[in-house]
Amino acid sequence: MDVRTFSVGRNFLVRVEHDSDFVVFLTSVAREQGIAAATFTAVGALKEAKLGFYDQERHVYVATLLAGPQEIASCVGNVSIKEGAPFVHAHAVLADRLGVVRAGHLLAGRVFAAEVHLVELVGEKVERKNDAVTGLSLWAI
Amino acid sequence: MDVRTFSVGRNFLVRVEHDSDFVVFLTSVAREQGIAAATFTAVGALKEAKLGFYDQERHVYVATLLAGPQEIASCVGNVSIKEGAPFVHAHAVLADRLGVVRAGHLLAGRVFAAEVHLVELVGEKVERKNDAVTGLSLWAI
Amino acid sequence: MDVRTFSVGRNFLVRVEHDSDFVVFLTSVAREQGIAAATFTAVGALKEAKLGFYDQERHVYVATLLAGPQEIASCVGNVSIKEGAPFVHAHAVLADRLGVVRAGHLLAGRVFAAEVHLVELVGEKVERKNDAVTGLSLWAI
Repeated sequence: MDVRTFSVGRNFLVRVEHDSDFVVFLTSVAREQGIAAATFTAVGALKEAKLGFYDQERHVYVATLLAGPQEIASCVGNVSIKEGAPFVHAHAVLADRLGVVRAGHLLAGRVFAAEVHLVELVGEKVERKNDAVTGLSLWAI
Repeated sequence: MDVRTFSVGRNFLVRVEHDSDFVVFLTSVAREQGIAAATFTAVGALKEAKLGFYDQERHVYVATLLAGPQEIASCVGNVSIKEGAPFVHAHAVLADRLGVVRAGHLLAGRVFAAEVHLVELVGEKVERKNDAVTGLSLWAI
Repeated sequence: MDVRTFSVGRNFLVRVEHDSDFVVFLTSVAREQGIAAATFTAVGALKEAKLGFYDQERHVYVATLLAGPQEIASCVGNVSIKEGAPFVHAHAVLADRLGVVRAGHLLAGRVFAAEVHLVELVGEKVERKNDAVTGLSLWAI
């Protein structure tokens, strides 16, 4: 079983800075706070976003740029260690002014306003390593 | 950094009452239990819903009424203090019978059945204050 | 008020096995670890999926098969006791290669890669019982 047990560490509420990039900002928080493992949920809105779909056969991300304002209807993700530093992995569901919903891997997102709850997990280090089967960088647990 | 640290308080599982309004019901739970700060996730189904999209230029919510039954495919949100009392902020992703997915700020939702996990966060008070840049009531942290 | 209080038990990060079924795999984890109550969030990707929409009048699930690869843009769910054993209830928001988003009750999903955070809730047993009003098996709390 690929299961690892943790205890809960610090809990953080984060107000992501207006006009910052969501992923870059959360990565900064993780690195400044020394967070090695965590999961998070978030809500809010973006000014624009870039979503990724992973091509499971060609092993590349296909990116879609969403040029206008988006509600962050859902954002779920985690922090773990990749190449020696805290790395943020976020997925999101976004909705635009016309009600069109797009979703996937959140590659980038310029923040209008965002509220994040980050839960630190304390235990053995969780490192991402290249996985040959998927071509992804997955938890080595 | 707009980051605040908390410890985990009480955890609640909530079965939202059939035919109640999701947001009103959760607000009642927060007020009756004296929950000043929390985040939550939920799944379930609604009989009808009202979703909001925030117009980032005009600073107003544009509401869409979804008149029929909806799966709550995702619901993420939080509780903080607004004008002196616990206030629920919820976003949701909904899917109807035809597979049409709508998403955004959950302004209202008449509950068919809903299961909520609410995590109380214990620490300094988190208050919403008017933010001139966005026109929203944001966490003053 | 249909509210029950818990404390946080073990926290698990789970890397779901490639090619396993998401719901079956999480159910195995819950049973092997003796998890009676929990909630979880997950992100990742599926090779194919089956989503359910609950018909609120006829009290049956209508299933939709999604035959190709899907990003798990959001997955929220819980574990409780049904007919004496841990039972997984999962909802998901999925996006395919063309950007089409589908969402609902996750009946089945063949995993490409998936990262789950499972939070054990320790307290009184949470059992699902048949509910005449909805036709669903709901928490008896």
